[in-house]
Amino acid sequence: MINRIGRYTLQLTNKPVIIGYGAVAGKKEAEGPLGKGFDKIFYDTLAGCDTWEQAESKFQQEAVEFALEKAGCKARDIDVALAGDLLNQCISSSYGLRDYNIPFLGQYGACSTMAQTLLVSSLLVEGGCASRALAVTSSHFCSAERQFRFPLEYGGQRTPTSQWTVTGAGAAIVSKNGAGAVIHHVTIGKITDLGITDINNMGAAMSPAAADTIKNFLNDTNTKPSDYDIIVTGDLGKVGSELLYEILEKDNINIRNNHKDCGLLIYDLEEQDAHAGGSGCGCSGSVLCSYILNNINSGNLKNILFIATGALMSPTSTEQGQSIPGIAHLLNIKWK
Amino acid sequence: MINRIGRYTLQLTNKPVIIGYGAVAGKKEAEGPLGKGFDKIFYDTLAGCDTWEQAESKFQQEAVEFALEKAGCKARDIDVALAGDLLNQCISSSYGLRDYNIPFLGQYGACSTMAQTLLVSSLLVEGGCASRALAVTSSHFCSAERQFRFPLEYGGQRTPTSQWTVTGAGAAIVSKNGAGAVIHHVTIGKITDLGITDINNMGAAMSPAAADTIKNFLNDTNTKPSDYDIIVTGDLGKVGSELLYEILEKDNINIRNNHKDCGLLIYDLEEQDAHAGGSGCGCSGSVLCSYILNNINSGNLKNILFIATGALMSPTSTEQGQSIPGIAHLLNIKWK
Repeated sequence: MINRIGRYTLQLTNKPVIIGYGAVAGKKEAEGPLGKGFDKIFYDTLAGCDTWEQAESKFQQEAVEFALEKAGCKARDIDVALAGDLLNQCISSSYGLRDYNIPFLGQYGACSTMAQTLLVSSLLVEGGCASRALAVTSSHFCSAERQFRFPLEYGGQRTPTSQWTVTGAGAAIVSKNGAGAVIHHVTIGKITDLGITDINNMGAAMSPAAADTIKNFLNDTNTKPSDYDIIVTGDLGKVGSELLYEILEKDNINIRNNHKDCGLLIYDLEEQDAHAGGSGCGCSGSVLCSYILNNINSGNLKNILFIATGALMSPTSTEQGQSIPGIAHLLNIKWK
Repeated sequence: MINRIGRYTLQLTNKPVIIGYGAVAGKKEAEGPLGKGFDKIFYDTLAGCDTWEQAESKFQQEAVEFALEKAGCKARDIDVALAGDLLNQCISSSYGLRDYNIPFLGQYGACSTMAQTLLVSSLLVEGGCASRALAVTSSHFCSAERQFRFPLEYGGQRTPTSQWTVTGAGAAIVSKNGAGAVIHHVTIGKITDLGITDINNMGAAMSPAAADTIKNFLNDTNTKPSDYDIIVTGDLGKVGSELLYEILEKDNINIRNNHKDCGLLIYDLEEQDAHAGGSGCGCSGSVLCSYILNNINSGNLKNILFIATGALMSPTSTEQGQSIPGIAHLLNIKWK
């Protein structure tokens, strides 16, 4: 049963379980601190395909294959797939999942997509719509860079606040039965826009949304940051994480002691020239579906908050002078 | 409660209700056969905004306002909003709904978005996640044309199979209580790709998906086309509708007698130079949220199938020689 707690948070009393998950990443990610945790590494940015966009679809497929394998099921056992990505018209997802023959609901949450797809999967399983639901996302440095910024060949300089789009994908299967990490609560985020217009500073644009969702969740559940082993955000990076602390501290909420950010975990910022950190749907996707879920399943992490943030602008809205709306969705995941 | 019937169809036993809906359209749509049914017409393609993209967001806002007004509620009474559109990164929706402060889940289903948002809204209400959910979509001829095809100033010729993107928006509020049209069943579509590569023939690309979903629904519910007053598709247009009949007839399913298509209803094809018919998320969105729901609420239509179809390609995937994957989601809507 799903109980609404407070204004924004839903409690899932039957506790849907993540029975399988997979993470695939590229060369730079493999060389970072979490490299050993990924199920598969593609050292070739094209992953054997003709284009980066097709490679990104292949990353999704590989992540799904690992998730299915670990869950011990086949594509036909999945009742619904939820997937999204950063590319125009979410083509990584539609081409990536095209051949699986699974009922499909495309999602768009920008870099919040791993949280969004996992959250909706959990609600559909808990609500009785599906026995097993698949949540998938991806990003690719090369496909994102040429779509959102400049052709790679241009070799543009990056600002210190800019982030590095992760080449990677994550997939997770949520089931009403089975063993694994359990979804206890979810909080659906609201669009939050404090007027940031610098597209080289996504962390700043997304941190108010993360703060809003975390505050709403803590209020609704009457809990405090220290109740959680870690509070892990998606890709706020160095700049956005610091802003998140500052915004929350205005409400006397201190998460400095147990906050982590997937964008800061995935690269060694100085060694790997990643500036303010990793970003992209594949950042929180690949980190959740390797390092974080591995640590939950081994009992190292017993109770966590996973909050992926997204920036909902497009190059067109930016050129038209619009500010960057952010969003953040939250899941409270526990070991049993 | 949600019961799975057969492999693909979900029966909603508490029967969520559409308590309010709104449709906004442009000048060409106002001059068509359904013109009198829209809640508001913008005769200016910019709707008083600086850009077509911003105008499209405004169309969404206006549709939402009418839906809220007819439902007799305020934005704060809505627990979750589901919205999507055709623009890159779905900016019509994120900017359109930015100021409402409603928990938001961005959806991407191309032209199937009205069915997808309404379907997920129904499942979230039925599953206990929300008391009231808002489903919204839009499209705009000018913003779509310049993004997917050519700058308007280019004045390109259109092929006979090409469709005309509707300038319009639809919004519907699904509630667990109240009076109005009732959602009885939903079928989530699968991605279907028969290898069509002609982007000027979207109807052909989408009709196999519509056929698949209709077949699955009829199988699952053990019903036949004549059990429904109308079977209304989103925007298959003239070419896609004929193909849909042919595909279904191979399985001895004949829907010719009671099939309608929003893309054929919205324009007088010959008088209005709309070639194969209307298209875009706003086509099925604005037609459902005016003509169709009005006819259900007045008792003229008692039991219908609404199937919106989407083509999940992008200009990039097309340039890379990929075929066009289609999808179709179905709702069985009744008067009580």
